[in-house]
Amino acid sequence: MSKPTLFTVLSPGLLELYDLEGSITVIIDVFRATSTIATALNNGAVAVYPVADIDECKAKGLLLNAVTAGERDGKVIDGLQHGNSPAEYSANFIHGKILVLTTTNGTKLLHMALRQHAEVVITGTFPNLSAVCNYIRSAGKNVILACSAWRNKVNIEDALFAGAVVQRVRSHFDIQCDSSLMVESMYRANKHTLQDFVRQTTHWHRLQGYGLEKDLDYCISEDVAPVLPVYQKETGALMNQLR
Amino acid sequence: MSKPTLFTVLSPGLLELYDLEGSITVIIDVFRATSTIATALNNGAVAVYPVADIDECKAKGLLLNAVTAGERDGKVIDGLQHGNSPAEYSANFIHGKILVLTTTNGTKLLHMALRQHAEVVITGTFPNLSAVCNYIRSAGKNVILACSAWRNKVNIEDALFAGAVVQRVRSHFDIQCDSSLMVESMYRANKHTLQDFVRQTTHWHRLQGYGLEKDLDYCISEDVAPVLPVYQKETGALMNQLR
Repeated sequence: MSKPTLFTVLSPGLLELYDLEGSITVIIDVFRATSTIATALNNGAVAVYPVADIDECKAKGLLLNAVTAGERDGKVIDGLQHGNSPAEYSANFIHGKILVLTTTNGTKLLHMALRQHAEVVITGTFPNLSAVCNYIRSAGKNVILACSAWRNKVNIEDALFAGAVVQRVRSHFDIQCDSSLMVESMYRANKHTLQDFVRQTTHWHRLQGYGLEKDLDYCISEDVAPVLPVYQKETGALMNQLR
Repeated sequence: MSKPTLFTVLSPGLLELYDLEGSITVIIDVFRATSTIATALNNGAVAVYPVADIDECKAKGLLLNAVTAGERDGKVIDGLQHGNSPAEYSANFIHGKILVLTTTNGTKLLHMALRQHAEVVITGTFPNLSAVCNYIRSAGKNVILACSAWRNKVNIEDALFAGAVVQRVRSHFDIQCDSSLMVESMYRANKHTLQDFVRQTTHWHRLQGYGLEKDLDYCISEDVAPVLPVYQKETGALMNQLR
Protein backbone atom coordinates (compact mmCIF):
# COMPACT_ATOMS: atom_id res chain seq x y z
CA MET A 1 0.00 0.00 0.00
CA SER A 2 1.38 3.42 -0.86
CA LYS A 3 2.08 5.85 1.92
CA PRO A 4 0.13 9.07 2.34
CA THR A 5 1.78 12.25 1.08
CA LEU A 6 3.13 15.15 3.13
CA PHE A 7 3.68 18.70 1.92
CA THR A 8 4.94 21.82 3.67
CA VAL A 9 3.45 25.16 2.63
CA LEU A 10 5.70 28.02 3.72
CA SER A 11 3.19 30.84 3.27
CA PRO A 12 -0.60 31.24 3.06
CA GLY A 13 0.16 32.90 -0.29
CA LEU A 14 1.11 29.48 -1.68
CA LEU A 15 -1.67 27.38 -0.13
CA GLU A 16 -3.85 27.36 -3.23
CA LEU A 17 -1.13 25.43 -5.10
CA TYR A 18 -1.86 22.41 -2.94
CA ASP A 19 -4.68 19.91 -2.87
CA LEU A 20 -6.04 19.84 0.67
CA GLU A 21 -9.08 17.70 -0.04
CA GLY A 22 -9.30 14.82 2.41
CA SER A 23 -6.12 15.94 4.18
CA ILE A 24 -5.16 16.70 7.72
CA THR A 25 -3.97 20.30 7.60
CA VAL A 26 -1.78 21.43 10.49
CA ILE A 27 -2.02 25.20 11.10
CA ILE A 28 1.28 26.50 12.48
CA ASP A 29 1.70 29.91 14.13
CA VAL A 30 4.46 29.37 16.68
CA PHE A 31 4.76 33.07 17.69
CA ARG A 32 2.21 32.91 19.27
CA ALA A 33 -1.34 31.95 18.30
CA THR A 34 -1.00 28.18 18.14
CA SER A 35 1.22 28.20 21.24
CA THR A 36 -1.44 30.10 23.17
CA ILE A 37 -4.14 27.72 21.91
CA ALA A 38 -2.16 24.65 23.03
CA THR A 39 -1.45 26.20 26.41
CA ALA A 40 -5.03 27.25 27.13
CA LEU A 41 -6.36 23.80 26.21
CA ASN A 42 -3.63 22.06 28.19
CA ASN A 43 -4.55 24.13 31.22
CA GLY A 44 -8.16 23.05 31.00
CA ALA A 45 -9.88 25.53 28.71
CA VAL A 46 -13.04 23.84 27.42
CA ALA A 47 -12.59 25.25 23.91
CA VAL A 48 -10.80 27.97 21.99
CA TYR A 49 -12.61 29.89 19.27
CA PRO A 50 -10.17 31.33 16.73
CA VAL A 51 -11.91 34.31 15.12
CA ALA A 52 -10.79 36.67 12.43
CA ASP A 53 -11.96 40.05 13.61
CA ILE A 54 -12.29 42.03 16.76
CA ASP A 55 -16.05 42.60 16.60
CA GLU A 56 -16.67 38.88 16.21
CA CYS A 57 -14.38 38.28 19.18
CA LYS A 58 -16.35 40.68 21.37
CA ALA A 59 -19.75 39.38 20.25
CA LYS A 60 -18.84 35.73 20.75
CA GLY A 61 -17.30 36.55 24.11
CA LEU A 62 -20.56 38.06 25.32
CA LEU A 63 -22.71 35.26 23.90
CA LEU A 64 -20.62 32.45 25.38
CA ASN A 65 -19.62 34.23 28.57
CA ALA A 66 -16.07 33.61 27.46
CA VAL A 67 -12.66 35.13 27.98
CA THR A 68 -11.81 37.34 25.01
CA ALA A 69 -8.27 37.87 23.85
CA GLY A 70 -6.32 39.55 21.11
CA GLU A 71 -3.37 41.81 20.51
CA ARG A 72 -2.14 44.15 17.87
CA ASP A 73 1.45 45.35 18.04
CA GLY A 74 2.00 43.65 21.38
CA LYS A 75 -0.87 45.39 23.20
CA VAL A 76 -4.25 44.03 24.27
CA ILE A 77 -6.91 45.31 21.89
CA ASP A 78 -9.32 47.87 23.36
CA GLY A 79 -12.49 46.14 24.49
CA LEU A 80 -10.89 42.70 24.87
CA GLN A 81 -9.73 41.30 28.18
CA HIS A 82 -6.47 39.52 27.49
CA GLY A 83 -3.47 39.23 25.19
CA ASN A 84 -1.95 36.55 22.95
CA SER A 85 0.63 35.43 25.46
CA PRO A 86 0.57 31.77 26.54
CA ALA A 87 1.79 32.97 29.96
CA GLU A 88 -1.61 34.52 30.63
CA TYR A 89 -3.43 31.21 30.47
CA SER A 90 -2.52 29.37 33.67
CA ALA A 91 -4.78 26.57 34.89
CA ASN A 92 -5.89 28.79 37.77
CA PHE A 93 -7.24 31.28 35.32
CA ILE A 94 -8.47 29.37 32.27
CA HIS A 95 -9.62 25.98 33.62
CA GLY A 96 -13.24 25.29 32.72
CA LYS A 97 -13.53 28.45 30.64
CA ILE A 98 -13.98 29.21 26.96
CA LEU A 99 -11.43 31.40 25.19
CA VAL A 100 -12.23 33.49 22.12
CA LEU A 101 -8.99 34.53 20.44
CA THR A 102 -8.59 36.92 17.55
CA THR A 103 -5.45 36.48 15.49
CA THR A 104 -4.46 37.66 12.06
CA ASN A 105 -2.20 35.23 10.23
CA GLY A 106 -3.19 31.95 11.89
CA THR A 107 -6.95 32.38 11.78
CA LYS A 108 -6.94 33.51 8.17
CA LEU A 109 -4.97 30.43 7.20
CA LEU A 110 -7.27 28.12 9.13
CA HIS A 111 -10.28 29.41 7.24
CA MET A 112 -8.43 29.15 3.91
CA ALA A 113 -7.75 25.49 4.68
CA LEU A 114 -11.43 24.87 5.37
CA ARG A 115 -12.41 26.54 2.09
CA GLN A 116 -9.96 24.23 0.30
CA HIS A 117 -11.78 21.26 1.83
CA ALA A 118 -9.23 20.08 4.36
CA GLU A 119 -10.92 17.14 6.07
CA VAL A 120 -9.33 17.68 9.46
CA VAL A 121 -7.76 20.92 10.69
CA ILE A 122 -5.52 20.85 13.75
CA THR A 123 -3.08 23.37 15.21
CA GLY A 124 0.57 22.72 15.94
CA THR A 125 3.55 24.32 17.64
CA PHE A 126 6.57 23.13 19.64
CA PRO A 127 4.58 22.89 22.90
CA ASN A 128 2.41 20.16 21.33
CA LEU A 129 4.91 18.72 18.82
CA SER A 130 4.66 15.05 19.85
CA ALA A 131 0.87 15.09 20.01
CA VAL A 132 0.75 16.39 16.42
CA CYS A 133 3.31 13.83 15.23
CA ASN A 134 1.60 10.91 16.93
CA TYR A 135 -1.72 11.88 15.44
CA ILE A 136 -0.60 12.34 11.84
CA ARG A 137 1.55 9.21 11.95
CA SER A 138 -1.39 7.04 12.92
CA ALA A 139 -4.17 8.71 10.91
CA GLY A 140 -3.15 7.35 7.50
CA LYS A 141 -4.20 10.54 5.70
CA ASN A 142 -2.32 12.99 3.51
CA VAL A 143 -0.85 15.86 5.52
CA ILE A 144 -0.32 19.54 4.80
CA LEU A 145 1.95 21.45 7.19
CA ALA A 146 0.70 25.00 6.73
CA CYS A 147 2.82 27.86 8.02
CA SER A 148 1.04 31.08 8.95
CA ALA A 149 4.06 33.26 8.10
CA TRP A 150 3.84 37.03 8.61
CA ARG A 151 1.58 38.82 6.14
CA ASN A 152 2.47 36.05 3.70
CA LYS A 153 6.22 36.50 4.14
CA VAL A 154 7.90 33.23 5.11
CA ASN A 155 9.09 33.07 8.71
CA ILE A 156 11.63 30.85 10.38
CA GLU A 157 9.81 29.78 13.51
CA ASP A 158 6.89 28.21 11.65
CA ALA A 159 9.26 26.61 9.14
CA LEU A 160 11.35 25.19 11.99
CA PHE A 161 8.31 23.58 13.53
CA ALA A 162 7.39 22.04 10.16
CA GLY A 163 10.98 20.75 9.99
CA ALA A 164 10.69 19.20 13.44
CA VAL A 165 7.55 17.37 12.33
CA VAL A 166 9.09 16.18 9.04
CA GLN A 167 12.12 14.81 10.85
CA ARG A 168 9.93 12.79 13.21
CA VAL A 169 7.37 11.41 10.76
CA ARG A 170 9.18 11.14 7.43
CA SER A 171 9.32 7.35 7.27
CA HIS A 172 5.52 7.21 7.39
CA PHE A 173 4.97 9.46 4.36
CA ASP A 174 5.81 9.76 0.70
CA ILE A 175 7.50 13.20 0.67
CA GLN A 176 7.95 14.68 -2.81
CA CYS A 177 8.21 18.24 -1.59
CA ASP A 178 11.30 20.43 -1.63
CA SER A 179 9.87 22.74 1.04
CA SER A 180 9.69 19.77 3.40
CA LEU A 181 13.30 18.84 2.67
CA MET A 182 14.35 22.46 3.21
CA VAL A 183 12.67 22.88 6.57
CA GLU A 184 13.93 19.51 7.75
CA SER A 185 17.48 20.42 6.78
CA MET A 186 17.20 23.75 8.59
CA TYR A 187 15.74 22.10 11.68
CA ARG A 188 18.44 19.40 11.77
CA ALA A 189 21.18 22.02 11.47
CA ASN A 190 19.79 24.18 14.28
CA LYS A 191 17.83 21.92 16.61
CA HIS A 192 20.43 21.96 19.36
CA THR A 193 20.67 25.74 19.28
CA LEU A 194 17.06 26.67 18.57
CA GLN A 195 17.00 29.50 21.09
CA ASP A 196 19.99 31.19 19.46
CA PHE A 197 18.74 30.57 15.96
CA VAL A 198 15.31 32.10 16.45
CA ARG A 199 16.89 35.16 18.03
CA GLN A 200 17.99 36.10 14.51
CA THR A 201 14.46 36.13 13.11
CA THR A 202 12.46 39.17 12.15
CA HIS A 203 9.57 38.15 14.39
CA TRP A 204 11.86 37.89 17.37
CA HIS A 205 13.06 41.42 16.88
CA ARG A 206 9.48 42.60 16.50
CA LEU A 207 8.24 40.90 19.69
CA GLN A 208 11.37 41.37 21.74
CA GLY A 209 10.69 45.08 21.59
CA TYR A 210 7.52 44.37 23.58
CA GLY A 211 9.42 42.54 26.35
CA LEU A 212 8.21 39.11 25.32
CA GLU A 213 11.49 37.21 25.30
CA LYS A 214 10.39 34.64 27.91
CA ASP A 215 7.23 34.03 25.93
CA LEU A 216 9.19 33.27 22.82
CA ASP A 217 11.47 30.79 24.54
CA TYR A 218 8.37 29.02 25.84
CA CYS A 219 6.87 28.87 22.33
CA ILE A 220 9.84 26.85 21.07
CA SER A 221 9.84 24.44 24.03
CA GLU A 222 8.83 20.92 23.05
CA ASP A 223 5.85 19.15 24.55
CA VAL A 224 5.13 21.48 27.43
CA ALA A 225 1.44 21.58 26.44
CA PRO A 226 0.75 18.07 25.10
CA VAL A 227 -2.71 18.53 23.59
CA LEU A 228 -4.20 17.93 20.15
CA PRO A 229 -6.36 20.94 19.21
CA VAL A 230 -8.83 19.78 16.56
CA TYR A 231 -11.16 22.21 14.80
CA GLN A 232 -14.83 21.28 15.15
CA LYS A 233 -16.55 22.32 11.95
CA GLU A 234 -19.97 22.22 13.60
CA THR A 235 -19.09 24.72 16.29
CA GLY A 236 -16.07 26.61 14.98
CA ALA A 237 -14.13 25.76 18.14
CA LEU A 238 -10.79 24.07 18.68
CA MET A 239 -10.98 21.33 21.31
CA ASN A 240 -8.41 18.97 22.74
CA GLN A 241 -8.98 15.57 21.18
CA LEU A 242 -6.66 13.84 23.63
CA ARG A 243 -8.89 14.58 26.58
CA MET B 1 25.52 55.33 6.10
CA SER B 2 23.00 52.53 6.29
CA LYS B 3 23.58 49.41 4.27
CA PRO B 4 21.32 48.40 1.42
CA THR B 5 18.74 45.70 2.12
CA LEU B 6 18.66 42.16 0.81
CA PHE B 7 15.61 39.92 0.56
CA THR B 8 15.13 36.38 -0.72
CA VAL B 9 11.85 35.53 -2.44
CA LEU B 10 11.31 31.79 -2.54
CA SER B 11 8.56 31.72 -5.18
CA PRO B 12 7.24 34.01 -7.92
CA GLY B 13 3.93 33.69 -6.07
CA LEU B 14 5.38 35.83 -3.27
CA LEU B 15 7.20 38.44 -5.38
CA GLU B 16 4.45 41.04 -5.14
CA LEU B 17 5.00 41.25 -1.36
CA TYR B 18 8.36 42.92 -2.00
CA ASP B 19 9.35 46.38 -3.13
CA LEU B 20 11.62 45.97 -6.14
CA GLU B 21 11.76 49.62 -7.11
CA GLY B 22 15.33 50.72 -7.64
CA SER B 23 16.67 47.27 -6.77
CA ILE B 24 18.96 44.79 -8.41
CA THR B 25 16.81 41.69 -8.86
CA VAL B 26 18.67 38.43 -9.38
CA ILE B 27 16.61 35.88 -11.33
CA ILE B 28 17.54 32.35 -10.24
CA ASP B 29 16.63 29.22 -12.21
CA VAL B 30 19.47 26.81 -11.50
CA PHE B 31 17.87 23.80 -13.28
CA ARG B 32 18.51 24.97 -15.98
CA ALA B 33 17.59 28.29 -17.60
CA THR B 34 20.00 30.61 -15.82
CA SER B 35 22.76 27.98 -16.04
CA THR B 36 22.28 27.73 -19.79
CA ILE B 37 22.26 31.54 -20.11
CA ALA B 38 25.53 31.85 -18.17
CA THR B 39 27.15 29.08 -20.21
CA ALA B 40 26.11 30.44 -23.60
CA LEU B 41 27.38 33.94 -22.71
CA ASN B 42 30.58 32.55 -21.23
CA ASN B 43 31.21 30.65 -24.44
CA GLY B 44 30.89 33.78 -26.51
CA ALA B 45 27.21 34.15 -27.38
CA VAL B 46 26.60 37.81 -28.24
CA ALA B 47 23.29 37.91 -26.42
CA VAL B 48 20.56 35.67 -25.03
CA TYR B 49 16.91 36.62 -25.48
CA PRO B 50 14.74 35.02 -22.79
CA VAL B 51 11.22 34.81 -24.23
CA ALA B 52 8.00 33.54 -22.76
CA ASP B 53 6.36 31.64 -25.58
CA ILE B 54 7.27 29.35 -28.40
CA ASP B 55 5.90 31.48 -31.23
CA GLU B 56 7.89 34.49 -30.04
CA CYS B 57 10.97 32.28 -29.89
CA LYS B 58 10.51 31.16 -33.50
CA ALA B 59 9.75 34.64 -34.81
CA LYS B 60 12.70 36.26 -33.03
CA GLY B 61 14.97 33.45 -34.20
CA LEU B 62 14.07 34.14 -37.84
CA LEU B 63 14.35 37.91 -37.48
CA LEU B 64 17.74 37.84 -35.76
CA ASN B 65 19.12 34.82 -37.59
CA ALA B 66 19.57 33.34 -34.13
CA VAL B 67 19.78 29.91 -32.56
CA THR B 68 16.40 29.03 -31.07
CA ALA B 69 16.07 26.81 -28.05
CA GLY B 70 13.46 25.46 -25.73
CA GLU B 71 12.28 22.27 -24.10
CA ARG B 72 9.15 20.94 -22.59
CA ASP B 73 9.36 17.77 -20.52
CA GLY B 74 13.00 17.24 -21.44
CA LYS B 75 12.47 17.27 -25.22
CA VAL B 76 13.34 19.98 -27.75
CA ILE B 77 10.15 21.77 -28.77
CA ASP B 78 8.97 21.09 -32.36
CA GLY B 79 10.17 23.87 -34.62
CA LEU B 80 13.04 24.93 -32.37
CA GLN B 81 16.63 23.84 -32.92
CA HIS B 82 18.07 23.17 -29.49
CA GLY B 83 17.30 22.27 -25.90
CA ASN B 84 17.77 23.88 -22.49
CA SER B 85 20.95 21.99 -21.64
CA PRO B 86 24.09 24.04 -20.94
CA ALA B 87 26.07 21.18 -22.50
CA GLU B 88 24.73 22.12 -25.93
CA TYR B 89 26.34 25.55 -25.90
CA SER B 90 30.05 24.95 -26.40
CA ALA B 91 32.21 27.82 -27.69
CA ASN B 92 32.59 25.99 -31.00
CA PHE B 93 28.87 26.14 -31.47
CA ILE B 94 27.62 29.36 -29.88
CA HIS B 95 30.52 31.83 -30.20
CA GLY B 96 29.43 34.98 -32.00
CA LYS B 97 25.82 33.87 -32.21
CA ILE B 98 22.58 35.06 -30.68
CA LEU B 99 20.48 32.62 -28.64
CA VAL B 100 16.72 32.92 -28.23
CA LEU B 101 15.62 30.75 -25.31
CA THR B 102 12.07 30.02 -24.26
CA THR B 103 11.63 29.02 -20.63
CA THR B 104 8.62 28.91 -18.37
CA ASN B 105 9.42 29.71 -14.77
CA GLY B 106 12.51 31.90 -15.21
CA THR B 107 11.26 34.10 -18.02
CA LYS B 108 7.92 34.71 -16.34
CA LEU B 109 9.70 35.81 -13.18
CA LEU B 110 12.04 38.12 -15.09
CA HIS B 111 9.11 39.95 -16.63
CA MET B 112 7.33 40.16 -13.28
CA ALA B 113 10.44 41.84 -11.85
CA LEU B 114 10.44 44.38 -14.67
CA ARG B 115 6.75 45.16 -14.11
CA GLN B 116 7.56 45.75 -10.43
CA HIS B 117 10.16 48.34 -11.50
CA ALA B 118 13.36 46.50 -10.68
CA GLU B 119 16.09 48.88 -11.79
CA VAL B 120 18.58 46.21 -12.80
CA VAL B 121 17.74 42.59 -13.61
CA ILE B 122 20.52 40.02 -13.75
CA THR B 123 20.52 36.22 -13.79
CA GLY B 124 22.35 33.99 -11.34
CA THR B 125 23.25 30.37 -10.79
CA PHE B 126 26.18 28.43 -9.34
CA PRO B 127 28.22 28.65 -12.57
CA ASN B 128 28.34 32.45 -12.19
CA LEU B 129 28.07 32.73 -8.39
CA SER B 130 31.14 34.91 -7.77
CA ALA B 131 30.31 37.29 -10.61
CA VAL B 132 26.86 37.87 -9.10
CA CYS B 133 28.27 38.33 -5.59
CA ASN B 134 30.98 40.74 -6.71
CA TYR B 135 28.48 42.82 -8.60
CA ILE B 136 25.85 43.15 -5.88
CA ARG B 137 28.50 43.76 -3.20
CA SER B 138 29.88 46.74 -5.07
CA ALA B 139 26.69 48.20 -6.56
CA GLY B 140 25.36 49.72 -3.33
CA LYS B 141 21.73 48.99 -4.22
CA ASN B 142 19.02 46.99 -2.52
CA VAL B 143 18.96 43.38 -3.71
CA ILE B 144 16.17 40.88 -4.30
CA LEU B 145 17.19 37.24 -4.77
CA ALA B 146 14.24 35.89 -6.76
CA CYS B 147 13.84 32.13 -7.06
CA SER B 148 11.96 30.82 -10.09
CA ALA B 149 10.68 27.74 -8.28
CA TRP B 150 8.55 25.21 -10.16
CA ARG B 151 5.08 26.44 -11.03
CA ASN B 152 5.30 28.61 -7.91
CA LYS B 153 6.24 25.69 -5.65
CA VAL B 154 9.45 26.39 -3.75
CA ASN B 155 12.45 24.37 -4.93
CA ILE B 156 15.70 23.53 -3.23
CA GLU B 157 18.21 24.25 -5.97
CA ASP B 158 17.20 27.89 -6.38
CA ALA B 159 16.99 28.35 -2.62
CA LEU B 160 20.47 26.84 -2.22
CA PHE B 161 21.90 29.31 -4.70
CA ALA B 162 20.26 32.18 -2.82
CA GLY B 163 21.83 30.77 0.35
CA ALA B 164 25.26 30.67 -1.28
CA VAL B 165 24.90 34.34 -2.19
CA VAL B 166 23.67 35.36 1.27
CA GLN B 167 26.59 33.61 2.93
CA ARG B 168 29.07 35.48 0.74
CA VAL B 169 27.59 38.98 0.84
CA ARG B 170 25.81 39.23 4.19
CA SER B 171 28.20 41.69 5.82
CA HIS B 172 27.45 44.21 3.05
CA PHE B 173 23.69 44.24 3.57
CA ASP B 174 21.05 44.87 6.18
CA ILE B 175 19.21 41.53 6.12
CA GLN B 176 15.85 41.56 7.90
CA CYS B 177 14.47 38.59 6.04
CA ASP B 178 13.75 35.15 7.46
CA SER B 179 13.82 33.55 4.01
CA SER B 180 17.42 34.73 3.62
CA LEU B 181 18.36 33.27 7.00
CA MET B 182 16.64 30.00 6.07
CA VAL B 183 18.39 29.56 2.75
CA GLU B 184 21.73 30.50 4.24
CA SER B 185 21.29 27.96 7.02
CA MET B 186 20.36 25.28 4.50
CA TYR B 187 23.31 26.15 2.28
CA ARG B 188 25.78 26.13 5.19
CA ALA B 189 24.52 22.72 6.34
CA ASN B 190 24.80 21.15 2.89
CA LYS B 191 27.47 23.04 0.97
CA HIS B 192 30.05 20.28 1.24
CA THR B 193 27.60 17.66 0.01
CA LEU B 194 25.60 19.67 -2.53
CA GLN B 195 25.55 16.88 -5.08
CA ASP B 196 24.02 14.42 -2.64
CA PHE B 197 21.59 16.98 -1.25
CA VAL B 198 20.13 18.03 -4.60
CA ARG B 199 19.66 14.38 -5.52
CA GLN B 200 16.78 14.38 -3.05
CA THR B 201 14.91 17.18 -4.79
CA THR B 202 11.75 16.86 -6.83
CA HIS B 203 13.35 18.55 -9.83
CA TRP B 204 16.22 16.11 -9.80
CA HIS B 205 13.84 13.19 -9.99
CA ARG B 206 11.96 14.89 -12.82
CA LEU B 207 15.06 15.61 -14.92
CA GLN B 208 16.97 12.48 -14.01
CA GLY B 209 14.28 10.56 -15.82
CA TYR B 210 15.42 12.33 -19.00
CA GLY B 211 19.06 11.26 -18.54
CA LEU B 212 20.27 14.69 -17.53
CA GLU B 213 22.26 13.81 -14.42
CA LYS B 214 25.57 15.21 -15.76
CA ASP B 215 23.78 18.44 -16.66
CA LEU B 216 22.51 18.84 -13.15
CA ASP B 217 25.90 18.33 -11.55
CA TYR B 218 27.24 21.02 -13.89
CA CYS B 219 24.45 23.43 -12.87
CA ILE B 220 25.56 23.30 -9.22
CA SER B 221 29.28 23.78 -10.03
CA GLU B 222 30.60 27.12 -8.84
CA ASP B 223 32.14 29.67 -11.19
CA VAL B 224 32.51 27.51 -14.26
CA ALA B 225 30.87 30.23 -16.39
CA PRO B 226 32.01 33.50 -14.78
CA VAL B 227 29.78 36.02 -16.56
CA LEU B 228 27.35 38.68 -15.42
CA PRO B 229 24.20 38.45 -17.56
CA VAL B 230 22.44 41.82 -17.37
CA TYR B 231 19.04 42.41 -18.94
CA GLN B 232 19.01 45.28 -21.45
CA LYS B 233 15.62 46.93 -21.20
CA GLU B 234 16.05 48.59 -24.60
CA THR B 235 16.57 45.35 -26.48
CA GLY B 236 15.14 42.65 -24.25
CA ALA B 237 18.42 40.74 -24.37
CA LEU B 238 20.73 39.48 -21.64
CA MET B 239 24.34 40.41 -22.28
CA ASN B 240 27.51 39.75 -20.34
CA GLN B 241 28.47 42.96 -18.56
CA LEU B 242 31.93 41.64 -17.66
CA ARG B 243 33.04 41.47 -21.28
